[in-house]
Amino acid sequence: MDTAEPITRLIEELKRLPGIGQKTAQRLTYSILRKSKTDAEQLARAILAVKEKIVYCRQCNNLTDVDPCRICANPARTNQTICVVEEAHNILSIEKIREFRGRYHVLHGVLSPINGIGPEELNLKNLFGRLEQNDVKEVVLATNPTVEGEATAIYLAKLIKPLGIKVTRIALGIPVGSSLEFADEVTLSKAMDGRREI
Amino acid sequence: MDTAEPITRLIEELKRLPGIGQKTAQRLTYSILRKSKTDAEQLARAILAVKEKIVYCRQCNNLTDVDPCRICANPARTNQTICVVEEAHNILSIEKIREFRGRYHVLHGVLSPINGIGPEELNLKNLFGRLEQNDVKEVVLATNPTVEGEATAIYLAKLIKPLGIKVTRIALGIPVGSSLEFADEVTLSKAMDGRREI
Repeated sequence: MDTAEPITRLIEELKRLPGIGQKTAQRLTYSILRKSKTDAEQLARAILAVKEKIVYCRQCNNLTDVDPCRICANPARTNQTICVVEEAHNILSIEKIREFRGRYHVLHGVLSPINGIGPEELNLKNLFGRLEQNDVKEVVLATNPTVEGEATAIYLAKLIKPLGIKVTRIALGIPVGSSLEFADEVTLSKAMDGRREI
Repeated sequence: MDTAEPITRLIEELKRLPGIGQKTAQRLTYSILRKSKTDAEQLARAILAVKEKIVYCRQCNNLTDVDPCRICANPARTNQTICVVEEAHNILSIEKIREFRGRYHVLHGVLSPINGIGPEELNLKNLFGRLEQNDVKEVVLATNPTVEGEATAIYLAKLIKPLGIKVTRIALGIPVGSSLEFADEVTLSKAMDGRREI
C-alpha cells in the first residue's frame, strides 16, 4: 500500500478499541489529522493521564484518581444503601440521574460459568466485608438485565438476604418514550410482573 | 459530580471527535482504562505521530509522511490518469480495490457556495499545473455523489475538457448486493441513465 505509515498505524491502534471498525478508525484518524497540534496533544495526554492517575478504590473497586474514591469519601453520601454494578462506567450512568445518594460496589464482571468467571473472580469478599462493617440497610442490585446479570443478581440476593439486609433489584420494563409494540416478549413479561398500583 | 477528573477529561476529549457522543466516549474511555499501560501509550504515541510526521504532498495534496507522497513517487504508477477526490481518506477507499494505478488529486473540500467555498478555496491552480505539465490522458472525477460533489464534478469537467483531456465520472447506481426496491428514485434514475450494454 502506498499509504503513509503513521496514518495506517493510528488506524490500526484505533481499531483495537471496542466497536471501532476500519471505517470509523479511518474517519477518526483523518479528523485527528485535521485537528490543531495542540488539540491532538491534549487528546494524547488525556489518554496517558487516565492510565497514570487512575487506580481502583480500595473500598468499592470504582476507578478513581484518589483512594478512597470521591463517592466513598463524600460525607454527604450514606453507607446505608449500596448499589452493586457490573462495571465502573455503570456508576456514571446512575450518577447522571442525580438521585442516588448511597455508595457503590463494582463487581468488574458478572458470573459467567461459560467464560470461567465464578464467585471467586468477582472479589465478593470485599463486598461482604463492607456489609458486615457498615450499617447497610439496603443493597440495590443494578447488574444488567442479561442472563449473566440476572444470575449474578439472584446469586447475590441469596447470600445477602440472610444477613438481614433488604435486597432490591432495579425495575425491568418498557423504556420511557418507547411503545409496547416495540418491546420484546421477555421485557413485556417483566413489565407486567413488575406492575405497580398508581 | 463525584467522578475522577482524568476520566471525565478523556471523555470530553473523545467527544470532540466526529460521530463520538457521550456514550461512545464513555465506552472508549473505560476500554482504554482496561488496556495495559503499554497499549495506551502506543495509542497516544500514534496520535502524536500523525500530527508530527504527516504533511501535505506538494503535488497531489494527499496527506503523507514523505513529500512527494508514496503514490506520486511510485514509478510503477502512471501520470496519464489523475483521479480527483474530495478528501485524502477517499484515496484509502479507492486504493483498497487495488485496480487504479494512476495518481490522485485531493481537493480538500467541494464547491459549496452556502459555506463560502468557491473555486479559489480548492487550490485548483495546483491541479491545472499538473494537467499542463504532465501527459495526462484522463481525469476521473471521484467526488461524492452529493449536491456539492456533483456540482464540483460538473465545474471541473467544464474547465478540463477544453484542454483536450478525457474527463470521466465514477458510475452512480445501485450498490452491489443491494436491491432495486431499496434504491431511492434519484439513484435508480442514475442507474438507468448509466446503463451499459452487456
